Amino acid sequence: MSDPLTYRDAGVDIDAGNEAVNRIRRILAGRPRKVPGGEVVGGIGGFAGCFRPFLAGYDDPLLVAATDSVGTKILIALEHNRLVGVGQDAVAMCVNDLVVAGVRPLFFLDYIGINKIDPDQIEGIVASIQRACEESECLLIGGEIAEMPAMYAPGHTDLAGFAVGIADAGKLIDGAAVRPGDIILGLASSGLHSNGFTLVRKLVEREGWKWDETLPECDAPLLETVLRPTKLYVKPLLKLFEAVGVGEDGGVKACSHITGGGLLENIPRVIPENCAVRLKRNSWPEPPIFRRIQEAAGLPDEEMDRTFNRGVGCAVIVASGDTERAKLALEGTGEKVHEIGEILERGSEGPAIAIG
Amino acid sequence: MSDPLTYRDAGVDIDAGNEAVNRIRRILAGRPRKVPGGEVVGGIGGFAGCFRPFLAGYDDPLLVAATDSVGTKILIALEHNRLVGVGQDAVAMCVNDLVVAGVRPLFFLDYIGINKIDPDQIEGIVASIQRACEESECLLIGGEIAEMPAMYAPGHTDLAGFAVGIADAGKLIDGAAVRPGDIILGLASSGLHSNGFTLVRKLVEREGWKWDETLPECDAPLLETVLRPTKLYVKPLLKLFEAVGVGEDGGVKACSHITGGGLLENIPRVIPENCAVRLKRNSWPEPPIFRRIQEAAGLPDEEMDRTFNRGVGCAVIVASGDTERAKLALEGTGEKVHEIGEILERGSEGPAIAIG
Repeated sequence: MSDPLTYRDAGVDIDAGNEAVNRIRRILAGRPRKVPGGEVVGGIGGFAGCFRPFLAGYDDPLLVAATDSVGTKILIALEHNRLVGVGQDAVAMCVNDLVVAGVRPLFFLDYIGINKIDPDQIEGIVASIQRACEESECLLIGGEIAEMPAMYAPGHTDLAGFAVGIADAGKLIDGAAVRPGDIILGLASSGLHSNGFTLVRKLVEREGWKWDETLPECDAPLLETVLRPTKLYVKPLLKLFEAVGVGEDGGVKACSHITGGGLLENIPRVIPENCAVRLKRNSWPEPPIFRRIQEAAGLPDEEMDRTFNRGVGCAVIVASGDTERAKLALEGTGEKVHEIGEILERGSEGPAIAIG
Repeated sequence: MSDPLTYRDAGVDIDAGNEAVNRIRRILAGRPRKVPGGEVVGGIGGFAGCFRPFLAGYDDPLLVAATDSVGTKILIALEHNRLVGVGQDAVAMCVNDLVVAGVRPLFFLDYIGINKIDPDQIEGIVASIQRACEESECLLIGGEIAEMPAMYAPGHTDLAGFAVGIADAGKLIDGAAVRPGDIILGLASSGLHSNGFTLVRKLVEREGWKWDETLPECDAPLLETVLRPTKLYVKPLLKLFEAVGVGEDGGVKACSHITGGGLLENIPRVIPENCAVRLKRNSWPEPPIFRRIQEAAGLPDEEMDRTFNRGVGCAVIVASGDTERAKLALEGTGEKVHEIGEILERGSEGPAIAIG
């Protein structure tokens, strides 16, 4: 008989896994167990996370769920051991997708696929997730760490998130009320957010850029600039909805989270077919990092518009008469807001979006 | 200026992604939009999936969420282009974790991390997910495919799932009612389910086993044997709960889904600290594949018990007086059920589980 082959020999370290779980328990121990949307319920044996939604005041409560990954942004964070923002990226990619539909996030779960569990690394990721959940008034109620040396190369870790939220059916923001003449407000992004990193990584390598170098006009070294965590739009948008209302009777008619597909794909998908988007190119400040990427990659505006947020992380569509009220409400929560375009009538052959 | 570097040059194929999404839309188009727990709601712009839970009859509805990965089992399925069961593995790992707590699964989302999107492969995975969701009376309402050539080696694909279910607070099965003298029923697994595959893959390589070879006493070639999809326990357990009740007043007192950590870790975690588990080793038939693995790996029983389900995919704990009723209810749904052990009093120094 050959040597015994145990699970540990096969590359799965159960002790490191237990230590990581202990660190996560410590992170969760001190946090609030209640948010405006509901509370954690304990004691169901640990197979799953349990949450009591506060349903009072809802006529027809709907559950809305979103999942997304931080993409290859995490590879840069791992290479430089800078995980402080990457959990926020995972949370933001999911909860922003909920709140743009008028949905209040309730709870979040994470999935980490990893080559080898390093308790420090897991602690860094989960602490960042927990901070972002608190900032978004939702609760981290579960997660999974899958150690798979055969799936992930040394140093590689994938991070995906799942968020569930709640909305009254009559208050979902579905874009149906959008009309020609409506105004598009752009909320500033914090930078690249979590999209386009496959291209960014290739570009940094090809151009020989150094991670500690500050590119022209940028306000921080490259590493810090690209790793800035994705902005969380939950609190500002929920405040906005409260302040100006949503739907047919004025107020917020549509919102778009600008992720993969950039401005070009994400704004048209939230408006009716008989409407088109017209953005005024220079109506908002584009952070210098986008210009550096565009020049170095030699990309036309259209490719850039299809890949990046270019400084607008979220677009909000309101009736023109509500523009000032909406701007004030958003600025009151600290957002930088610009009027970036308008909704036009769309002919049968016309494009869904034009930027110029 | 150097050659333009587009997103496609950087390794992300947007057309293949769109084709995969079209295939998924086709899979979803024909399916039922309603299950006993609720229904899909359309038209919120595609950032997230929307579900209306049917809340009538619940006094204090709780939402319960679970996430899990199929682990490295999918690598074997990918190598042999046999994805027909792998979606069921993803669904089963999550919905079984819900139903053992007395929770009815409502909806499911999948996360696919992949080297390069192959629409045929995505279609195979999602079709398998959809069949398993139907079998478990829950609805697939969203998912994410992240193409990351820098994260995943060619041919590698990670698959994780996320399920949300509902239960009345008073009907959660939390193990609190378990008492010495209670009986443990074992529900047959379909085979390895989705755990232990890191070890299995190393072993197959080390032993030079051929995937088309039928190992002694096994009823099918190795590939088919190990890829048998994880059993879905949702329908049988929901029927059981309906037939015999749950909780303090008799009926089902605890259930355990046997996953990573095997029999040894998963059964003790669902019972109170003052109770211990005693399993009778030969009281259930162990599928021959487990014996082949044990012999070849040279593992003691304890290592096997800590890694594999050994033929018991789910354990159900009932008062001894309810044993026959519970067995009949489960057998009525087609389950193979064995009385595999009992609950004993646990001394302060005693082990949580003994198998012998």
